[in-house]
Amino acid sequence: MKKAAWALALLLAIPAIAFGGDEVIELTVTTNKEAIDLLQTNLNYVWTLVAACLVFFMQAGFAMVESGFTRAKSAVNIMMKNLMDFSMGSVAFWAIGFGLMFGTSKTGWFGTDGFFLSGWGGPDSDPWVLAFWMFQCVFAATAATIVSGAMAERTKFTGYLVYSFVVCAFIYPVFGSWAWGSLLNGSGWLEGMGFIDFAGSTVVHSIGGWAALAGAIVLGPRLGKYGKKGEVRAIPGHNIPMAAIGVFILWLGWFGFNPGSTTTGDSSIAMIFVTTNLSAACGAVFAMFTSWLMFKKPDIGMTLNGALAGLVGITAGCANVSPTSATIIGAISGILVVISVVVIDRMHIDDPVGAVSVHGVCGAWGTLAAGLFNMGGFTTKIITTQLIGIGAAFIWSFGAALILFKIIDMTIGLRISKEDELMGVDITEHGTHAYNDFQTIN
Amino acid sequence: MKKAAWALALLLAIPAIAFGGDEVIELTVTTNKEAIDLLQTNLNYVWTLVAACLVFFMQAGFAMVESGFTRAKSAVNIMMKNLMDFSMGSVAFWAIGFGLMFGTSKTGWFGTDGFFLSGWGGPDSDPWVLAFWMFQCVFAATAATIVSGAMAERTKFTGYLVYSFVVCAFIYPVFGSWAWGSLLNGSGWLEGMGFIDFAGSTVVHSIGGWAALAGAIVLGPRLGKYGKKGEVRAIPGHNIPMAAIGVFILWLGWFGFNPGSTTTGDSSIAMIFVTTNLSAACGAVFAMFTSWLMFKKPDIGMTLNGALAGLVGITAGCANVSPTSATIIGAISGILVVISVVVIDRMHIDDPVGAVSVHGVCGAWGTLAAGLFNMGGFTTKIITTQLIGIGAAFIWSFGAALILFKIIDMTIGLRISKEDELMGVDITEHGTHAYNDFQTIN
Amino acid sequence: MKKAAWALALLLAIPAIAFGGDEVIELTVTTNKEAIDLLQTNLNYVWTLVAACLVFFMQAGFAMVESGFTRAKSAVNIMMKNLMDFSMGSVAFWAIGFGLMFGTSKTGWFGTDGFFLSGWGGPDSDPWVLAFWMFQCVFAATAATIVSGAMAERTKFTGYLVYSFVVCAFIYPVFGSWAWGSLLNGSGWLEGMGFIDFAGSTVVHSIGGWAALAGAIVLGPRLGKYGKKGEVRAIPGHNIPMAAIGVFILWLGWFGFNPGSTTTGDSSIAMIFVTTNLSAACGAVFAMFTSWLMFKKPDIGMTLNGALAGLVGITAGCANVSPTSATIIGAISGILVVISVVVIDRMHIDDPVGAVSVHGVCGAWGTLAAGLFNMGGFTTKIITTQLIGIGAAFIWSFGAALILFKIIDMTIGLRISKEDELMGVDITEHGTHAYNDFQTIN
Repeated sequence: MKKAAWALALLLAIPAIAFGGDEVIELTVTTNKEAIDLLQTNLNYVWTLVAACLVFFMQAGFAMVESGFTRAKSAVNIMMKNLMDFSMGSVAFWAIGFGLMFGTSKTGWFGTDGFFLSGWGGPDSDPWVLAFWMFQCVFAATAATIVSGAMAERTKFTGYLVYSFVVCAFIYPVFGSWAWGSLLNGSGWLEGMGFIDFAGSTVVHSIGGWAALAGAIVLGPRLGKYGKKGEVRAIPGHNIPMAAIGVFILWLGWFGFNPGSTTTGDSSIAMIFVTTNLSAACGAVFAMFTSWLMFKKPDIGMTLNGALAGLVGITAGCANVSPTSATIIGAISGILVVISVVVIDRMHIDDPVGAVSVHGVCGAWGTLAAGLFNMGGFTTKIITTQLIGIGAAFIWSFGAALILFKIIDMTIGLRISKEDELMGVDITEHGTHAYNDFQTIN
Repeated sequence: MKKAAWALALLLAIPAIAFGGDEVIELTVTTNKEAIDLLQTNLNYVWTLVAACLVFFMQAGFAMVESGFTRAKSAVNIMMKNLMDFSMGSVAFWAIGFGLMFGTSKTGWFGTDGFFLSGWGGPDSDPWVLAFWMFQCVFAATAATIVSGAMAERTKFTGYLVYSFVVCAFIYPVFGSWAWGSLLNGSGWLEGMGFIDFAGSTVVHSIGGWAALAGAIVLGPRLGKYGKKGEVRAIPGHNIPMAAIGVFILWLGWFGFNPGSTTTGDSSIAMIFVTTNLSAACGAVFAMFTSWLMFKKPDIGMTLNGALAGLVGITAGCANVSPTSATIIGAISGILVVISVVVIDRMHIDDPVGAVSVHGVCGAWGTLAAGLFNMGGFTTKIITTQLIGIGAAFIWSFGAALILFKIIDMTIGLRISKEDELMGVDITEHGTHAYNDFQTIN
Repeated sequence: MKKAAWALALLLAIPAIAFGGDEVIELTVTTNKEAIDLLQTNLNYVWTLVAACLVFFMQAGFAMVESGFTRAKSAVNIMMKNLMDFSMGSVAFWAIGFGLMFGTSKTGWFGTDGFFLSGWGGPDSDPWVLAFWMFQCVFAATAATIVSGAMAERTKFTGYLVYSFVVCAFIYPVFGSWAWGSLLNGSGWLEGMGFIDFAGSTVVHSIGGWAALAGAIVLGPRLGKYGKKGEVRAIPGHNIPMAAIGVFILWLGWFGFNPGSTTTGDSSIAMIFVTTNLSAACGAVFAMFTSWLMFKKPDIGMTLNGALAGLVGITAGCANVSPTSATIIGAISGILVVISVVVIDRMHIDDPVGAVSVHGVCGAWGTLAAGLFNMGGFTTKIITTQLIGIGAAFIWSFGAALILFKIIDMTIGLRISKEDELMGVDITEHGTHAYNDFQTIN
């Protein structure tokens, strides 16, 4: 191999020479390989940030679903809450959350550096951190927005601002560091056990859903939601088309949420698109038929939530279950969400949009399903780890949020007055109606 | 060339060596070329799937256009139909349609394998098939959704579910296999003749439009649409801004529909963007001026349909006509759609949103135009082939849909009762109103 | 280095040989490098055109914001105007504007060739020009759309069509050639001085904003906007949720507007995403608190405009200021927009949506800030140049638009009659209402 070694030396040492602008660039097999690697990196930037755009757009979808499913007199407040979820949330995640979630972690419980993107931002830093921050930021805001739905129509705006900040700055990032910290500088105890949650059935959706449950419990139901004899009264949404378009937007956004979580632009995103889509489709179809059986009519609210349930359900396992498994996961999600909405309502927990059922319950189911339908086979260890993750998310998020909401309730106040609630949170908290030129009832 | 051959041997056999993680990767000109090819493939995945996202979003656009152009009492039903078009449609296309359209075809009439993505899905399969499925799935659902518009406000929901499934499972894929089967495993008789329909003026839009025509005829007009003396009465849409935003969303989605049909991320998409955009713009402008001349005012419904007409018109030829030709194709589409809407209305065929004119008529025109304005010149053979394709689409889609709707009509029923229609399909079929807090007329 | 030169000759002359379809492709280090460069170019096409899609979608966002902030009786007209901004605008920019802006320029004041994409379009041309045209076209239409908001509810449709064409064909492109001409074939006097306006705080937003100011002044206020004693009366918007969703869409679109202005798919887009997002978030938060202090309630209109103000403010400097600076730029934009809206209203200039404050004032501030917060440090020369650019934009755009609107006013007429305005511009100019099934007031 003497000749070979010699030729190798030539290849590495004596390159072709090309003339760029005003400097000589030496071309070799090695520099070409470096250029190829850089190009894949560039593609990863484009893909990850386009995916971040899609996830960002989910904020609009959430705002439309929450607003459409509630009353006209609360629509301004919901828009303000969702705008602030993302605005305050971005600032909170920049200042505190990102460091807790992805900073260097000695214990596996939270990161301890990188706040305000310090050491990461600025001209000399690795731009990948900035791209990754952007992608993670839109995830953090999603968790906060989920809570908003369960607390609609009766929450004090100042109280809301506080909890929205705390979710993005602490509750979400700390759990996130347990499961996803190693994606950057951190390391988490849960991911160390082999916990599977590719895009966040638990990390994002259950965390949001269980915090929503705590909020709905501390707040109590809307006036008139439950009768004196305990009967459940429907409070119909004021704009069903808006809610439906919101679900289409969320479905679209999920094509960033799940496939984008590869943060790599390659063929691996294809299957994730397919599993995500099939699960959503089956969620909608099965929720529709379930509602049809239970209520004698195909119910649009349940069907829309069924699509979302299918999306939440596949989020954990989108990259490690087959398309056929995805149809089963979605179908079960669709059935589950209808039953859960009915049960939670009978427990007199007033969740106006079904956020706890969609995100909490189906998030937990999806995380379990990611183990059960794992293409590489499932073991008792995998299932146990998944159950530990599901349990940890409930204890952390429900517990932390319960304490937070109780503190807010006892200090600045969490709920508006009865008079204000009757008039509507829009006019009393923000001084305007949503639909000034329309004759509205309620 | 002895030296040359010797150096070549060295280049291929004796690579540079780089040390990756824990294995030695041998770098050569050839491995670099393979890496470059893989990278282009990765870019194709990203582009095709981002384009699929845009096309998926068209479902929201269709729902908004159809709903905005019809009455408030039908909006819930329209949202349900559109959600089910995509949900049932995804399942139907996964189970049956994709195999019929792209499976191995011995006859050139339909594929015979690959149902349920079998042999294609799962961990060991080619991920490109999954990406391609996703892209084609959103196309199939588009065809189904077009039909929905022409049948709005009076169709029984169960009947609708049946036909929506059949369009995505059979009617659309069979024709699709004739024109596009060879894009994967199949082969079609029409594409074998040299039929030009790059992104589906005929394959998607005319197929949808002619099925819509069959549906509108079998259903008959809405109550009160035509007077006793045969006079045509306008039934104005309930939310024009929603319809307009829907058209913007459709226009956006078309930037996935047409350029995405390259399924290749390269410079070829640039001209397709430009032809698509200029045709849509000219469609809107010319429809507006045509309506202005005919009705004395610039009509928003016609103008919005003009933009869609321009988009449908350029879909077949977007990749083989020049930007200047695109302006002419769009302008004619814009004029044509206004005339067609008026003529179809005078024939007492009640198409509430103009779906037959936009998708059927302008789809046929666009397919012809793709031949007439072909940048490589046009021959009698090209025009003949285009006309054969246009005719085949009409016979197949109108014929199959007519039989389908007649069967549904005679069995489970296609149309709701007069009482239900007067009350509105929302409350009678789904048990809810769209706008519960608003005072609505009608 | 004799050996080296010899090996180099071999490397270049005697390639590896691979067999493609039916031709022999010779592989060398050099052909690989060419393939790598081509691939980066392909990625640039995908990124630039996906970004163009996002910017196109801003048209929907503008339509929703403008319509939501005004009355129900003007919503059809606003949709028509926005559709025509983009449709007429695309045609105008294709026929005239693009040539003026990017054609060969001898003087640095405007280009003189390339009209109708001649010499650039068609089968043999450089496809990059087509991609670049598409990206620039959506920018041009944005400038036109900004003007629409300030002139809402009282402008004659024919007058509107004329000015919309002129903005896209002349006013915007001429200034654009001064600052951005060299991006293609041109050269501009302002860019020659070192003017920093990466994505168009001045080039797009101030140009639109100052033309809007001219329009609002020439038109005069809406009937009833200012009382006999000069008191300012609020005319509340008819659909606040629509306006809010519009702002989410605009925010989304800005992720194409700013990072897309690289027209290069690489790591440089990451920081631009982050600066854009943080500035928008801080704009919303600070506008909310400012309005809370000034009006005792957190005002949704001001908060939504605060997000837009933050976006406009960071547009010039998004690529040359740090994330931390972006939070400051956004915060100041948010405060500034609230003050500006109040001041302009007290000057009895009726700008129904705050377009002058958002785009004109914050565009000027953002352009100055791009100099002040420049990561490479700022010099007196930089600040002077920025101020010259800001001043030139005001003089050109306000001046040209003032003359244009005066001419329209004196010829075909710019404003509808009092009777028509009371009835609403929808029914009088377009013959239909926006919400036919709803009971509307006003």
